[in-house]
Amino acid sequence: MSIRTLSSREIYRNPWLRLREDQIERSNGTQGIYSVVDKDPCAVIIPIEGDRIYLIEQFRYTIQERSLELPQGGWETEDVVAEELARGELREETGLEAATMTYLGWMWIAYGFTRQKQFVYLATGLTPAGADPDPEEHDLELRTASIAEFEVMLLDGTIRDVCTLGAWGLYRLWKERQRG
Amino acid sequence: MSIRTLSSREIYRNPWLRLREDQIERSNGTQGIYSVVDKDPCAVIIPIEGDRIYLIEQFRYTIQERSLELPQGGWETEDVVAEELARGELREETGLEAATMTYLGWMWIAYGFTRQKQFVYLATGLTPAGADPDPEEHDLELRTASIAEFEVMLLDGTIRDVCTLGAWGLYRLWKERQRG
Repeated sequence: MSIRTLSSREIYRNPWLRLREDQIERSNGTQGIYSVVDKDPCAVIIPIEGDRIYLIEQFRYTIQERSLELPQGGWETEDVVAEELARGELREETGLEAATMTYLGWMWIAYGFTRQKQFVYLATGLTPAGADPDPEEHDLELRTASIAEFEVMLLDGTIRDVCTLGAWGLYRLWKERQRG
Repeated sequence: MSIRTLSSREIYRNPWLRLREDQIERSNGTQGIYSVVDKDPCAVIIPIEGDRIYLIEQFRYTIQERSLELPQGGWETEDVVAEELARGELREETGLEAATMTYLGWMWIAYGFTRQKQFVYLATGLTPAGADPDPEEHDLELRTASIAEFEVMLLDGTIRDVCTLGAWGLYRLWKERQRG
């Protein structure tokens, strides 16, 4: 089955997201609505140096809590080169440059109601860059943890961000293949 | 830093999501807007029997493609018991009942712009239940794969759903701790 779009109207738009409501018809003939949040592509970066991983702590307004997560973000434009975006987000959020960016894949974020791609990069060979803070991001705090500590935090719920968990799941699978 | 809400207005509401736009003030005094999509909690289920994992293939309207993923969904109400929701989604999507549901944790989905929790359950001891299809879900197709095949599909991009990747990442960490 597929779903046919009968009509579409934009409900809302700001620099970070667009919401539209579509009238749809399913292949069984029933009609309904489907609302879609469109967002520009983003990147999540796994910065690893030896046994240490770099994390970001910040206040997440949606959940009204400070959160620990992998560096991630987007640039409010569709027109991005994935690695440039990932390098830029790494620099903006952590102040680090990577000698090597390794592309691990991309994920659909929340595609039940959203259309947004997230590119996943491993960043290694890390050195401090000049600071380049985004005004929205001035409250970010850089943290580091050992890989073992990071995995305990994923497991015990200290870190609950699905994008961090998804990127780490992908990294683990990739890493296992490298050894084999 | 925290972010203060100055005012809030609802932009849109349907049975599956609410969008509001808040006027905010950051601790440095700058003002702006923050739009939040509120959604009811959902569950993602990892149904494993021996070396086989059960997956769902369905058309995802937001991305206009058929997708392969772990069974997942919500009930358009905040008022859910996590395990009941997970058992219900498993039954609706796969037609399976689980002798054992093991709670692995919960994740925030896309908390850059959304407030939604997703509970993660491992389902084992699987047996066919009476079919209980959701009308929105009548085009679901049940697939099975070996764990090894599933992991190849996560790695090669056949499966790109961040919730499937995140749940699997959590499961892998949990599984390693079980072995001691």
